[in-house]
Amino acid sequence: MEDFERAKDKILMGTERRSVVMPENERKNTAYHESGHAVVAYLLPKTDPVHKVSIIPRGRALGVTMQLPTEDRFSMDRDQILQTISVMFGGRIAEEIFMNQMTTGASNDFERATETARRMVTQWGMSDALGPMVYGENESEVFLGRSVTTHKNVSEATMQKVDAEIRRIIDEQYALARKLIEENRDKIEAMTKALLEWETIDSEQIKAIMENRPPRPPQPPQSKSSATPKEDNKPTSTAAANEGSAQEV
Amino acid sequence: MEDFERAKDKILMGTERRSVVMPENERKNTAYHESGHAVVAYLLPKTDPVHKVSIIPRGRALGVTMQLPTEDRFSMDRDQILQTISVMFGGRIAEEIFMNQMTTGASNDFERATETARRMVTQWGMSDALGPMVYGENESEVFLGRSVTTHKNVSEATMQKVDAEIRRIIDEQYALARKLIEENRDKIEAMTKALLEWETIDSEQIKAIMENRPPRPPQPPQSKSSATPKEDNKPTSTAAANEGSAQEV
Amino acid sequence: MEDFERAKDKILMGTERRSVVMPENERKNTAYHESGHAVVAYLLPKTDPVHKVSIIPRGRALGVTMQLPTEDRFSMDRDQILQTISVMFGGRIAEEIFMNQMTTGASNDFERATETARRMVTQWGMSDALGPMVYGENESEVFLGRSVTTHKNVSEATMQKVDAEIRRIIDEQYALARKLIEENRDKIEAMTKALLEWETIDSEQIKAIMENRPPRPPQPPQSKSSATPKEDNKPTSTAAANEGSAQEV
Amino acid sequence: MEDFERAKDKILMGTERRSVVMPENERKNTAYHESGHAVVAYLLPKTDPVHKVSIIPRGRALGVTMQLPTEDRFSMDRDQILQTISVMFGGRIAEEIFMNQMTTGASNDFERATETARRMVTQWGMSDALGPMVYGENESEVFLGRSVTTHKNVSEATMQKVDAEIRRIIDEQYALARKLIEENRDKIEAMTKALLEWETIDSEQIKAIMENRPPRPPQPPQSKSSATPKEDNKPTSTAAANEGSAQEV
Amino acid sequence: MEDFERAKDKILMGTERRSVVMPENERKNTAYHESGHAVVAYLLPKTDPVHKVSIIPRGRALGVTMQLPTEDRFSMDRDQILQTISVMFGGRIAEEIFMNQMTTGASNDFERATETARRMVTQWGMSDALGPMVYGENESEVFLGRSVTTHKNVSEATMQKVDAEIRRIIDEQYALARKLIEENRDKIEAMTKALLEWETIDSEQIKAIMENRPPRPPQPPQSKSSATPKEDNKPTSTAAANEGSAQEV
Amino acid sequence: MEDFERAKDKILMGTERRSVVMPENERKNTAYHESGHAVVAYLLPKTDPVHKVSIIPRGRALGVTMQLPTEDRFSMDRDQILQTISVMFGGRIAEEIFMNQMTTGASNDFERATETARRMVTQWGMSDALGPMVYGENESEVFLGRSVTTHKNVSEATMQKVDAEIRRIIDEQYALARKLIEENRDKIEAMTKALLEWETIDSEQIKAIMENRPPRPPQPPQSKSSATPKEDNKPTSTAAANEGSAQEV
Repeated sequence: MEDFERAKDKILMGTERRSVVMPENERKNTAYHESGHAVVAYLLPKTDPVHKVSIIPRGRALGVTMQLPTEDRFSMDRDQILQTISVMFGGRIAEEIFMNQMTTGASNDFERATETARRMVTQWGMSDALGPMVYGENESEVFLGRSVTTHKNVSEATMQKVDAEIRRIIDEQYALARKLIEENRDKIEAMTKALLEWETIDSEQIKAIMENRPPRPPQPPQSKSSATPKEDNKPTSTAAANEGSAQEV
Repeated sequence: MEDFERAKDKILMGTERRSVVMPENERKNTAYHESGHAVVAYLLPKTDPVHKVSIIPRGRALGVTMQLPTEDRFSMDRDQILQTISVMFGGRIAEEIFMNQMTTGASNDFERATETARRMVTQWGMSDALGPMVYGENESEVFLGRSVTTHKNVSEATMQKVDAEIRRIIDEQYALARKLIEENRDKIEAMTKALLEWETIDSEQIKAIMENRPPRPPQPPQSKSSATPKEDNKPTSTAAANEGSAQEV
Repeated sequence: MEDFERAKDKILMGTERRSVVMPENERKNTAYHESGHAVVAYLLPKTDPVHKVSIIPRGRALGVTMQLPTEDRFSMDRDQILQTISVMFGGRIAEEIFMNQMTTGASNDFERATETARRMVTQWGMSDALGPMVYGENESEVFLGRSVTTHKNVSEATMQKVDAEIRRIIDEQYALARKLIEENRDKIEAMTKALLEWETIDSEQIKAIMENRPPRPPQPPQSKSSATPKEDNKPTSTAAANEGSAQEV
Repeated sequence: MEDFERAKDKILMGTERRSVVMPENERKNTAYHESGHAVVAYLLPKTDPVHKVSIIPRGRALGVTMQLPTEDRFSMDRDQILQTISVMFGGRIAEEIFMNQMTTGASNDFERATETARRMVTQWGMSDALGPMVYGENESEVFLGRSVTTHKNVSEATMQKVDAEIRRIIDEQYALARKLIEENRDKIEAMTKALLEWETIDSEQIKAIMENRPPRPPQPPQSKSSATPKEDNKPTSTAAANEGSAQEV
Repeated sequence: MEDFERAKDKILMGTERRSVVMPENERKNTAYHESGHAVVAYLLPKTDPVHKVSIIPRGRALGVTMQLPTEDRFSMDRDQILQTISVMFGGRIAEEIFMNQMTTGASNDFERATETARRMVTQWGMSDALGPMVYGENESEVFLGRSVTTHKNVSEATMQKVDAEIRRIIDEQYALARKLIEENRDKIEAMTKALLEWETIDSEQIKAIMENRPPRPPQPPQSKSSATPKEDNKPTSTAAANEGSAQEV
Repeated sequence: MEDFERAKDKILMGTERRSVVMPENERKNTAYHESGHAVVAYLLPKTDPVHKVSIIPRGRALGVTMQLPTEDRFSMDRDQILQTISVMFGGRIAEEIFMNQMTTGASNDFERATETARRMVTQWGMSDALGPMVYGENESEVFLGRSVTTHKNVSEATMQKVDAEIRRIIDEQYALARKLIEENRDKIEAMTKALLEWETIDSEQIKAIMENRPPRPPQPPQSKSSATPKEDNKPTSTAAANEGSAQEV
């Protein structure tokens, strides 16, 4: 069972890189960052349950918050998508509040949050201001070995509206995530403490922390697994249909 | 005759993928979505008759509303085109009203509605504001194995007018579809119930529902057909000359 | 002589596709559309004489109005060009007035009218507002097997003026064509009747209709020609130096 | 000597295409058009002397006004360039005044006039408003078999100034040419008459016309030359360093 | 130990090019330029310690200020980044204040400062005005041997905000660097004097200068090293994770 | 020594093309043009000394003003760059004042002046209005045999500022050059006279002219060198690090 869990982690989150020595300051920053993702994800009802949080570097990620869907998913609802964006901001916000700093590490979170908000506005018809239509199609197809670019122009006036809507979504979800983190400072502190001590915590430990109970220590086999041969491969993408669940620092 | 019907369905709508297990919530959402398309299509006189509605996943589609033209068609009239756009919006509107949610599943409907409205304005001379002319020709031809791109510039002022006209068409047809669905909530509920029970309904059953009569149960052979070997191929495009008739979720 | 006439028609207008079965409504729409082109062409003195009108589908065209120049032409005068644009609009206007609809079938007419108006303004120095100069050169040359694109930028302010001039020309010629058709409703009705009955009419029959005389019935050999083997080739472009004479639906 | 003259004409103006039968109206239009070029060129002191004017079609040109520089030229002065632009407009203006029409035939004149005015403003520092600098470099180099495009952006505000300056130059030179033609209507009429009668006139005949003397008839050998075998090759560009001297219709 | 130090210098800063004869004026300018970088770097607490400053040309650089991080770094904090930008400006500011001139030599510093400020605003979410999102993605991927360009348009309004934010960051960090240099003129003068005399100074000498103590003369072995065979290779980039530490003139 | 001088000239300025016969008017224009460059260069203290001025055509240049730096140069100061731009304008200004004309020959001077001013503003941080940063990076790299284009967008508002700054620099340096030439008309006249008589003058003769002394006649060997075999090769670029020193007409 533990072997199976380890295999799943490796597939979903990438291989652990225990050989990397992180400066204590960055290790602490990563712990707050992942706790930020995890606490927001735990509190928002429409996002997937948090399966595991870890500050062991994997691939290019300094830490990982893994969410797993409870069943297959074929489409996403607007509320789910909005809450997912909030989860993406949890990391940076925790850095700001608890470490009093902003790092470059959140850049990938912003890229995914922006891309998701852009698709809500331009492809999924989820903005009242822009309505149920599609904007700014730029198709770049490779056809028979030649690149064919098609531009369908959108006016500057429309592009400004698109930009404003994306920004509104980003700002609202950021504010929601910030409110949740500020209201749950104790949870973030407790989870960060657990992560700094044990490096990885599971859903049961997360649940305890969120319910203000002391989390149980990690299972013995988990510590044994740390004795297995180190591997240092390239990261694999998460298997979750809800892309964006596994937060990288 | 049943074999022939099955063959036609496979060609027009793609192969059924009965192996896919849909979460109940998404299955219900799909049933409302397809009922939305079907009810709007049934009520608008210039669109093609609804031949069949199904929530069995086919290819990449979670459900299908199949409309079949009654005769060959060589050109389309403005009213036909406008009503077709309304049909495309029926799916999303039903989701909003009955499921109280918006999903990503309507993205393909919006893409086709936008593209159709754009062509009305820029190629078919069907907007009074833009007049009987052609706008924004971007031709990208592959000539003798080399890609040759030609841009015919259109001013920002003109692009704004084009954007505004497309938006006006979209909004008007959306409002029409919404009005029809709100006035026919009972039909949508009845059709969704039938779809959740029988998965696929034919034109006769649809007619019964729309006339407030109880639809007859599916023909026995149809249930037998569910015992045929499963296939899971890539979807085929609909044969309807009136593209956009077969609504994907 | 009849063989020669048939050969010329095939070269100038494309091969007849008598196997195509047109819905009655579209056949009627096509007859009004072609009558619209033909009546406007007949009434405007500087356009080429109308040689033949037909609603037999040829190539991709549902009908054809063939104008033939009376002598070779090496350049065109502004009045000729403006009247040619009016002829292009005759088809759509007849649809609107007599069928009370707008179809996609006029899209090719609009494309040619727009392109012609654009060249008047940007290449032929025929707009007082833009003057005797050339605008917006976009040259895309294929040189030694590589595509080389050169953009000569034109300011947004100038592009707006160009757009406005093109629109003015389009609107004025459309208004002229509409006026002619409304003043000659009886001619359109008579020509449409003849087309629906005989499918093709020649210059002599057209002349009779325009002079309020009953057109003579088609020559016997013409009906014999309908017994010749069907062919279904791709359409050929008209040989007329004055491109735009043979109106497609 | 006549052979030499014929060879030079063929090189500078393209091969005569005597087989082309021009409609009388276009032949007359061409005669006025070339007379317009020739009279403006004769009257403006800084342009090259007019060597020959002809309405025999050569290559794609319907007529030719050939100017020959009196010595080699390595650079051009602003006044020379401005006057050359006026010569380019002489053809269209003569059409307007004497034929009361505008034809597409002047399109090549406009292209060269615009290009010349654009270079005055953007490359040669000859506009006070834009100053002694270079604008809007778009370099498209083919380097080692690949196309490399470099765009050096210029602001919309600057592009508007460039457009306005080009337009100012065009309008002023057009006005100058128009004034000269209106003041010399009799010369245009006399030259057109000579061209319609003799098809080609030389510098001596032009001089006579401009001095209100009757031009001598063409030399006998010239008429003999019309008995030489017809040739129909592609046109060659003029050898004149001052490009733009040989006016095509 | 000296051999090791020389090897490290060669790897981090490029091979010395002692054969280059610098004009005295440019040598002095370089000494002030590097002192400007070094003094600002020394005074700003979050930048890496200055390991060495040299005015011996290496590769294409006329001088080098080498900063070395004290531990591995996986992400950077906003304050670190801002201070790094200030260090980049130290060189040009020292030129202005002490040499009363501006040279082209600072161009590489500006390029890196601009690029860093742009990423703060557009990728790292470090501008309050633009918020935690990503702007202006232009992806140009080479896929299977073909170049595929994707443009995600951003409105002019948004681009203006981005430009203004980048400019604000640049101006604030420039002002900070200028203030530090003006308050520490004596340190710059002392360091420049040491550099002109000894060409290279190490962290110990830098510390002495910054604490107003006379720096000890260079170690004997260092002078011996100047007797080693000259090499003239291409420069290597610095190994510092904090790119931008080793300032080129 | 003379052989060495001839070899250097050939390398720096291109091979003489004595076979070219220049019209007297253009020869005179060239003499004033080169004198304009040379006098401005002589008077501005930060530009390189004028080594030689010649009106013998070399390669594509009608004349050459050769400046040679007195020592190697690794970077340039703002004042040097500004004065170099003024030197570039000396040629056109002399044409205007003494020949009362503007020719196309100065086009290359304007291209270099504009490019230099643009780099001052966009790359070298030498404009107070635009500040110490880099603008409008357009990188077009050829990578592994494919062309990869990257556009980093700059807002229209910023482009307008850039355009205005470039224009300001151009206008100020043009005004400076004009003032110098108007105050030194006698020097220009004397130098032009010497050039028309002797074709090439050296630094000693230039110095005499600038000090109002009669220049000594050319050295006998120089005249002998004119008896050496003519060569007519393609021009080589000047070796001067300070590009722009050798002024072409």
